[in-house]
Amino acid sequence: MKKIGIVGVTGAVGQELLNVLFTRKFPFSQLVLLASERSAGKTIPTPFGEMIIEEFSREKAEKLDILFLAVGADFSREHAPYLAEKGVLVIDNSSAFRYEASVPLIVPALNASALQNHTLIANPNCTTAILAMPLYPIFQEFGLKKVIISTYQATSGAGSAGMDELEKQTRNFLNHEEVKNEVFAHPIPFNIIPHIDVFQENGYTKEEMKVSWETRKIFGLPKLLISCTAVRIPTFRAHAESVTVETEKPVDIQKIKEILSVAKGVDLVDDTEKKQYPMPLNATKKYNVEVGRIRKNDVFGEYGLDFFVCGDQLLRGAALNAVEIAELTL
Amino acid sequence: MKKIGIVGVTGAVGQELLNVLFTRKFPFSQLVLLASERSAGKTIPTPFGEMIIEEFSREKAEKLDILFLAVGADFSREHAPYLAEKGVLVIDNSSAFRYEASVPLIVPALNASALQNHTLIANPNCTTAILAMPLYPIFQEFGLKKVIISTYQATSGAGSAGMDELEKQTRNFLNHEEVKNEVFAHPIPFNIIPHIDVFQENGYTKEEMKVSWETRKIFGLPKLLISCTAVRIPTFRAHAESVTVETEKPVDIQKIKEILSVAKGVDLVDDTEKKQYPMPLNATKKYNVEVGRIRKNDVFGEYGLDFFVCGDQLLRGAALNAVEIAELTL
Repeated sequence: MKKIGIVGVTGAVGQELLNVLFTRKFPFSQLVLLASERSAGKTIPTPFGEMIIEEFSREKAEKLDILFLAVGADFSREHAPYLAEKGVLVIDNSSAFRYEASVPLIVPALNASALQNHTLIANPNCTTAILAMPLYPIFQEFGLKKVIISTYQATSGAGSAGMDELEKQTRNFLNHEEVKNEVFAHPIPFNIIPHIDVFQENGYTKEEMKVSWETRKIFGLPKLLISCTAVRIPTFRAHAESVTVETEKPVDIQKIKEILSVAKGVDLVDDTEKKQYPMPLNATKKYNVEVGRIRKNDVFGEYGLDFFVCGDQLLRGAALNAVEIAELTL
Repeated sequence: MKKIGIVGVTGAVGQELLNVLFTRKFPFSQLVLLASERSAGKTIPTPFGEMIIEEFSREKAEKLDILFLAVGADFSREHAPYLAEKGVLVIDNSSAFRYEASVPLIVPALNASALQNHTLIANPNCTTAILAMPLYPIFQEFGLKKVIISTYQATSGAGSAGMDELEKQTRNFLNHEEVKNEVFAHPIPFNIIPHIDVFQENGYTKEEMKVSWETRKIFGLPKLLISCTAVRIPTFRAHAESVTVETEKPVDIQKIKEILSVAKGVDLVDDTEKKQYPMPLNATKKYNVEVGRIRKNDVFGEYGLDFFVCGDQLLRGAALNAVEIAELTL
């Protein structure tokens, strides 16, 4: 039985880590909730009953078997390599180590074998993880030449504060009161913002580049032609993505539907006659991502494919994936 | 001085037709508001003062010089050819005639010459018209091989009823009351729906195919490789579109920005350092469409381009374009 810990348990991802550990009956002998001095000493409700948050220290953390980091990249950079060196399995939800060749970036259903004997593991960006679930099985059967993505990303990507801002400022908007933005670069109610994370020199945002970099790494395709336009929209916690693919082998829509109907972590939701397709409200709080709107895209002749995917940003995009990584060690 | 008429003046597009005619000081000797028996006799406020809606009859309509149709395709099919034959310039906002080779489909800044002596003119689909404003100048200078679009479409695309449903049901959602959907296929508050207009046999919706069919027709490129994924989102009245293009000549981002900074009907909003990019809240009630996020897309090597465009659905997507068609006759 493992001793496990979570840093960042009061955040949106940390809360879902507790829920997922509970729901999946993850076996542990001890669960320690760690935080900065600011949160330490607080008692919080959890699915395991009320628990007290302890102040983080390396001494406490290095006694654990598994540590989930659901905090910023700076914290991870400071402590994760040290703890991993000490033999703790550190599963880091930040972007700090995702692009280091020596650190595996894992979506357990797809590339679990990358774990090997590593003790520092990166959890992918939410948009990447949700995309990868249907794209990987398609890649395995049909190969990939080009992938073009436009996203519809929920406010949970900015944590609880993002969701709170959406709710509160939407009320203000409807009540003709002043609409403020603190979390987002612009007002989010009834608006969309094509800007997530910082802009890079090439005109893409870092969020958009993360999707390209991480998909290449997880799929083992360092030269994959892939691009993303990432857009924040006024939804709460499920991301959607419109995806156009050029495959290496001719597209067979029926076969793709068959593959996706049995793919791990994927629900095929694709019955247009019954108005069934992926939507954020339906994908919210679901473990599986929904995929649908599967159709040939003639822009790429016989090799063109379109699909639409929608997944819970806090679960598949973060907490569920992290717990599944931990489950690989059981 | 022209005698002009509007059928469908109580709808969202009809209301904007009145506003645009007023703001642009369109010269007329007579303005007649026509409707079905149901609305006839009503007095409504207009920018020209209170006006009475008259019951539509062919006898009244055929005395006009210009008639704007802002009603359904069935009405247009029944009456537009007859009135056009009688010499009335009929500017039809429905999809009834857009795909007939004998009927020009016009965005005045782009293909005004298609008007010739035609008296039945089709106004494009809103998503097409907004896309075409920046895409056409790019096409003229760099050529087009492939165009891939994902849309973020406002509820105004379903008229006033669509916007009302968004507002009312968002209140219900926030007040934990039942959220209903009558206009849309599913609840729209804090959700997105990848389904606009009816599904076709090829898996695309008619809305998605309209964008392909109409762009080919307006641009005079019957074989253009173009695809669209059309998504309804919880915004009020400006559509946004994420666009990836493969050009014929190598992309020169600086030149494209120069071209778009002087293109008719386009505002270049592309200063990422100052967090300036197209957004629905800013594009609302503007005549010009906003274009930004202009960057090279390496998926298509030297020939790849990404941009983001946002335009008022009721103005550039409908009423403004219709009035600009009428202005071609002045």
